[in-house]
Amino acid sequence: MYRSHNCGELTATNINTEVTLSGWVQKSRDKGFIVWVDLRDRYGITQLVFDEERTSKQMMEQAQNLGREFVIQVKGTVIERASKNPNIPTGDIEILVSELTILNESILPPFTIEDKTDGGEDIRMKYRYLDIRRNPVKNSLIFRSKVSQEVRNYLSKEGFIEVETPYLIKSTPEGARDFVVPSRMNEGQFYALPQSPQTFKQLLMVGGMDKYFQIVKCFRDEDLRADRQPEFTQIDCEMAFVEQEDILNVFEGLTRHLLKEVNGVEVEKFPRLLYDDAMRLYGNDKPDIRFGMEFGELNHVAQHKDFGVFNNAELVVGIAVPGGNSYTRKEIDKLIDWVKRPQVGALGMVYSRCNDDGSYKSSVDKFYNQDDLAKWAEVTGAKPGDLICVLSGDKNKVRAQLSALRMELAERLGLRDPKVFAPLWVIDFPLLELDEDTGHYHAMHHPFTSPKPGQLELLDSNPGDVKANAYDLVLNGNEIGGGSIRIHDKETQAIMFKHLGFTEEEAKAQFGFLMDAFQYGAPPHGGLAFGLDRLVAILGGQETIRDFIAFPKNNSGRDVMIDAPAPIDDKQLSELHLKIEL
Amino acid sequence: MYRSHNCGELTATNINTEVTLSGWVQKSRDKGFIVWVDLRDRYGITQLVFDEERTSKQMMEQAQNLGREFVIQVKGTVIERASKNPNIPTGDIEILVSELTILNESILPPFTIEDKTDGGEDIRMKYRYLDIRRNPVKNSLIFRSKVSQEVRNYLSKEGFIEVETPYLIKSTPEGARDFVVPSRMNEGQFYALPQSPQTFKQLLMVGGMDKYFQIVKCFRDEDLRADRQPEFTQIDCEMAFVEQEDILNVFEGLTRHLLKEVNGVEVEKFPRLLYDDAMRLYGNDKPDIRFGMEFGELNHVAQHKDFGVFNNAELVVGIAVPGGNSYTRKEIDKLIDWVKRPQVGALGMVYSRCNDDGSYKSSVDKFYNQDDLAKWAEVTGAKPGDLICVLSGDKNKVRAQLSALRMELAERLGLRDPKVFAPLWVIDFPLLELDEDTGHYHAMHHPFTSPKPGQLELLDSNPGDVKANAYDLVLNGNEIGGGSIRIHDKETQAIMFKHLGFTEEEAKAQFGFLMDAFQYGAPPHGGLAFGLDRLVAILGGQETIRDFIAFPKNNSGRDVMIDAPAPIDDKQLSELHLKIEL
Repeated sequence: MYRSHNCGELTATNINTEVTLSGWVQKSRDKGFIVWVDLRDRYGITQLVFDEERTSKQMMEQAQNLGREFVIQVKGTVIERASKNPNIPTGDIEILVSELTILNESILPPFTIEDKTDGGEDIRMKYRYLDIRRNPVKNSLIFRSKVSQEVRNYLSKEGFIEVETPYLIKSTPEGARDFVVPSRMNEGQFYALPQSPQTFKQLLMVGGMDKYFQIVKCFRDEDLRADRQPEFTQIDCEMAFVEQEDILNVFEGLTRHLLKEVNGVEVEKFPRLLYDDAMRLYGNDKPDIRFGMEFGELNHVAQHKDFGVFNNAELVVGIAVPGGNSYTRKEIDKLIDWVKRPQVGALGMVYSRCNDDGSYKSSVDKFYNQDDLAKWAEVTGAKPGDLICVLSGDKNKVRAQLSALRMELAERLGLRDPKVFAPLWVIDFPLLELDEDTGHYHAMHHPFTSPKPGQLELLDSNPGDVKANAYDLVLNGNEIGGGSIRIHDKETQAIMFKHLGFTEEEAKAQFGFLMDAFQYGAPPHGGLAFGLDRLVAILGGQETIRDFIAFPKNNSGRDVMIDAPAPIDDKQLSELHLKIEL
Repeated sequence: MYRSHNCGELTATNINTEVTLSGWVQKSRDKGFIVWVDLRDRYGITQLVFDEERTSKQMMEQAQNLGREFVIQVKGTVIERASKNPNIPTGDIEILVSELTILNESILPPFTIEDKTDGGEDIRMKYRYLDIRRNPVKNSLIFRSKVSQEVRNYLSKEGFIEVETPYLIKSTPEGARDFVVPSRMNEGQFYALPQSPQTFKQLLMVGGMDKYFQIVKCFRDEDLRADRQPEFTQIDCEMAFVEQEDILNVFEGLTRHLLKEVNGVEVEKFPRLLYDDAMRLYGNDKPDIRFGMEFGELNHVAQHKDFGVFNNAELVVGIAVPGGNSYTRKEIDKLIDWVKRPQVGALGMVYSRCNDDGSYKSSVDKFYNQDDLAKWAEVTGAKPGDLICVLSGDKNKVRAQLSALRMELAERLGLRDPKVFAPLWVIDFPLLELDEDTGHYHAMHHPFTSPKPGQLELLDSNPGDVKANAYDLVLNGNEIGGGSIRIHDKETQAIMFKHLGFTEEEAKAQFGFLMDAFQYGAPPHGGLAFGLDRLVAILGGQETIRDFIAFPKNNSGRDVMIDAPAPIDDKQLSELHLKIEL
């Protein structure tokens, strides 16, 4: 027993108790005749005291020589503190130490182990085991564990069975790139790490498992964008004998449970927004609805005037920025520069100031009179004091641009409060998505998503118009989950594969087992998957996922702490019958 | 909504209720004027009835044409059954069907979906999704889910944090072979899949996480023995500021919790057996103590007579087989043949019959008189009616041989009751193990295991004598968990690596990050890992793990259902800068 109590639990009720504590030296203050040491462990900080009168000379010296992050064990008596600290639970007491043992020394850490550290991202990642000692990281990991456990509690209570699906599966070249694993026992052959357990969970439904879930690692060998990890965690779920409504209800229940249990927040029934409406109102299939600033489409009021830019545009669309009329000309010019950055890509921005007296002053006064601009205000919902920002061009592009602007302005206006949670369902996603580069359609969700009843025929004539029972759960502008009702008969699946450009042979080679399974009484089924990393980060009130992952990789997919990936032995390579060709 | 109720919940209290059920056709009985159909889902079986009087002619025909494993939906009324079935919860009622919808047809399954199927192992694996519909597999998976959830509940309540450690780590060529994963973004370099999260959990302790657990997949590229899987699941745990006693108590508590919650069995405090005693009494470090038959070492009573075989043996050791005197000469000869099989490897077996009248009749009467044999009986604890079986030879070999015989006889005598649970701790394992082939010592547990205090010096003089605070949890003759107190200072770890034959450079290249971490105030720590697959199988009263894994691989590491591993595209290979050389 290295301790009788932890460093977070002793209070005034323990005064005069003999205790044993172990932990790390957070810091010490040496006044010569008295030494205070803050002893830290996962649970908190307890103050130790050594003083000339009551501490032996030898121990006094030992205490004076304790360095930061030394690991020590002390025995002593809980006493009342002279100067109390109301900010921590143990702030009323301190330990008068009678025995001090140094369990392990520490050299000087490369950065300070404080909530606000002096260590940059790179050094913190290299010494992640020290970074984890810091409250912001430690608490994020504890928070993640709590979320996972609450997910399991809720789904278990709802009758879901957690089934572990395999990690060593088969590569399917469609979609994102697989990580592959050479097989030594099967020469020249490879396993792949799963991008998701999609086919296995569907087979579990064919197998009658009825309600499945799993919190599971998935893998994607993508060129990493910021805040993407090559390995990530999903809450993966599937149900049989269900329609979309059943699934939405269960997972709305789960999300509400999490918000209540881990955030103490009660949320109303989640709004549902059609995909088409989400695109129209927010230019985005994962709208942040913590604030308004909905899009107003202006074609009917802004076109057919003399302004060629608008007349030639597929879409003219604006938003009202609350209080934006207070922006100086210079600020507005900066905003225009912002939308013209290559990351956003607008060619320009038209604006109209909504003056307090009800008049307007726009950047295109030459073409639009006060009545015209009043209509803009009406459509965008602008009020006196607001600023209307208008973009125009190709529909898809201009929506994405205005969505970026909307989010940026909301951020600047402080409208994205991390303590406010605004979940919603976006439903009725298109089945297929046009790849502008190749001109081919590919599955928007995945090839196993079922078209809406009666729309199968549209696949030939208007593939882009086919809608699916596919849905995303969106929270504060982030997609945290998505799913669909699946195809459950072999014929429909074959038609889908054909439309996605698979030959019959390719479909059979890659998904033959699934098509076979559909012949033996596959039930109607559907499901969804949550991205746990992001979900946890958002519930934790943050936008970046890295501190919610114990040992994350950097943007090159490297673990800089263990220095992986790394070369392997020639012997390992030859056992795998592989040769490297750079 | 495909159903108002499931197929396992309707009873007499629901009579006259209108219900909707969905499920699979388990079987149907067609009497011409009446058709009964057993409808099955995960939750049970409910009988449907169609009859000439109350069912339309068209539906009657439809019902008569339902094939096995068709997926159907029915609406109908719960009525009392004429001939009740007391063996199932729904046996008092049946559903008079008013509406029948075929949701999906099924071709004839390749084996019967019954508790006792006509399908062999191979075909069941190929169509695992059909195998999972069978109760024995389905219930095993549900059982596994329950065990996992109870593990999480218990450890969470004990303050453990579940932390996900990475799957893409670094290859360490020592120990078993790693599965490796080529990195596309880091040319010519590889990740490895973890054989266990060992170093990461130790780093979490350095990071102050204090109590960690994880239910996690691990990977070993071994030539597969029967009932081994290339991917397997561990309950992985680590604690800081603990001694062996603390760890044993926590995980004895966990095991007792599982036995109580999932098996309804209350178990006394677990016995603890020194490793040396386990080897002496059972010839085995994972003894099955559900029955006696402890070894009696006979050197002092059987040597120094005229029997050269025993005189020249390092160890003469016997067991008393309860009631074994009833074996015929022929049966005993067969037993002798059994121990001489190459899998066991004994050169022969000496026996002594313990007659009911207190006399003895041995196979070596020429050398041993009644007094001698009485001493054998005393040492082995044989009673009148028993048979004493004696093996001799090299100590390590003969112990293994007699242990095999002991287990075989217990099996034949029905002493290995799967409903009886006899856990125990085996403690004080040796730190090192001699590799007889190379003459080198390697770590018995792993290179991070701490030698017992004060025994570090022995490493030079008598490495084989050094004991560790290493322990196994054994249940019914199976090692279900093992762990140790770890090294937590850099110097000791360096000494260990040296003794295990690492050069300083090798140690630094492979475990430099861990040695570095030990410099920054590593706390004393230790832990253990349970093998979940085996634990679940044993709690489920079975010795084979395969039915407790949803999608297991065969002995060649293949998933025969999805046909993996498989060749990959040339494009994939070239992106990874790899070439296959067969």
